[in-house]
Amino acid sequence: MSSKNLIDVLIDGKIYQLYGYESEEYLQRVASYINVKISDIKKEEQYRRKGLEVQRTMVEINIADDYFKAKKQADLLEADLDNKDQQLYNLKCELIATQIRLAASEKEVSNMQKEIVDYQKEIIRYETLIKERDRQEGNGNSVDSEATQ
Amino acid sequence: MSSKNLIDVLIDGKIYQLYGYESEEYLQRVASYINVKISDIKKEEQYRRKGLEVQRTMVEINIADDYFKAKKQADLLEADLDNKDQQLYNLKCELIATQIRLAASEKEVSNMQKEIVDYQKEIIRYETLIKERDRQEGNGNSVDSEATQ
Repeated sequence: MSSKNLIDVLIDGKIYQLYGYESEEYLQRVASYINVKISDIKKEEQYRRKGLEVQRTMVEINIADDYFKAKKQADLLEADLDNKDQQLYNLKCELIATQIRLAASEKEVSNMQKEIVDYQKEIIRYETLIKERDRQEGNGNSVDSEATQ
Repeated sequence: MSSKNLIDVLIDGKIYQLYGYESEEYLQRVASYINVKISDIKKEEQYRRKGLEVQRTMVEINIADDYFKAKKQADLLEADLDNKDQQLYNLKCELIATQIRLAASEKEVSNMQKEIVDYQKEIIRYETLIKERDRQEGNGNSVDSEATQ
């Protein structure tokens, strides 16, 4: 935070000197917001002719109401955020479990591909062996048709 | 929301009749909060001897400050929530993509298992065929050892 500032704000037609760490822009925003609240109360028929104390108490009640509502909203959002964090955690766990199953399945595919190549080689060896024996025996039978019947 | 209520609250030693939809519990909480703020200002050396208008303006500034801070917190939480929603969306997409890949891989495993069974059957047929021919020819060679050399 920056150094302390001395800021003049105008509230209900009077100048107040505020001394603090808040920026001038922030304090002017606060003053402007309070002026709107004061103006709103002064416009209301039931408070127009009341004294300053009643009017300013009503202003305080209205600002405090805004505060409690904003705080309630923040509390609800915080609960919502906790809920989303739990959902994120659950989804991450589910994703990791699925990724592990996928890796295992892809490894199995890779192993089976090698196994299939070995079987194919073995079949070719058998086919070659049978063709070789057919030739030696002068036998004209088709090996493929015998083997696959 | 329930029907309108007429509630008496005590603020800075005076009774105010508030008429609205808010519950008595809520309005008493608001009144109690304002009384703490008024009491805090009256305790401060610089405001103790000031008039009612200055004191109540400082109370308004303090309550408005609480409001702006609660609102800022709610805004930050809302941005955080949007960010979590985006993360949840991305994770769900990633999970679905991984589940689709897993299903495809598991289907491939299932197909390859059938393919392997077919190859194994074919090899058994070849082995049987060769053994049969060995027997017919009175040949004592080992088929397995020939085929797997």
